[in-house]
Amino acid sequence: GDVAAGKTKYNACISCHGAQGQGQAIFPKLAGTPAEKTTELLKKYRAGETVGPNTPLMAPQAATLSDEDIANLAAYIETL
Amino acid sequence: GDVAAGKTKYNACISCHGAQGQGQAIFPKLAGTPAEKTTELLKKYRAGETVGPNTPLMAPQAATLSDEDIANLAAYIETL
Repeated sequence: GDVAAGKTKYNACISCHGAQGQGQAIFPKLAGTPAEKTTELLKKYRAGETVGPNTPLMAPQAATLSDEDIANLAAYIETL
Repeated sequence: GDVAAGKTKYNACISCHGAQGQGQAIFPKLAGTPAEKTTELLKKYRAGETVGPNTPLMAPQAATLSDEDIANLAAYIETL
């Protein structure tokens, strides 16, 4: 994944997960998550699977992402 | 708008805005917002306009909504 492109896509994640992926309240910490794990979860959300309590929020977010977007986001998040 | 259908669509909003539209942290209170205002804002988000600091989050959310979805959500939120 392209870290710089992932950083741009990550703008959509900041309100909940924080600029450093630190998380807040019910929104989990993302920083340092292995890219493989982020990819797996975003693809589950995109496929309409129930992942956790924030699934109704994350499904529409993931629906807008291409495989490349997911790879880029996953690469960026791993660097946080 | 159809309030019952709006309530179902509102599931995507709960993580940030709360089940009663009470808001939390940087996520504004929605309860009681006039339907006309909600409709206007969701259509701006959907059109890619910058509305406020959470625009990068709200744009993908709004992108998944039809005109009917927006009317229903707006009707439901007005009842909160």
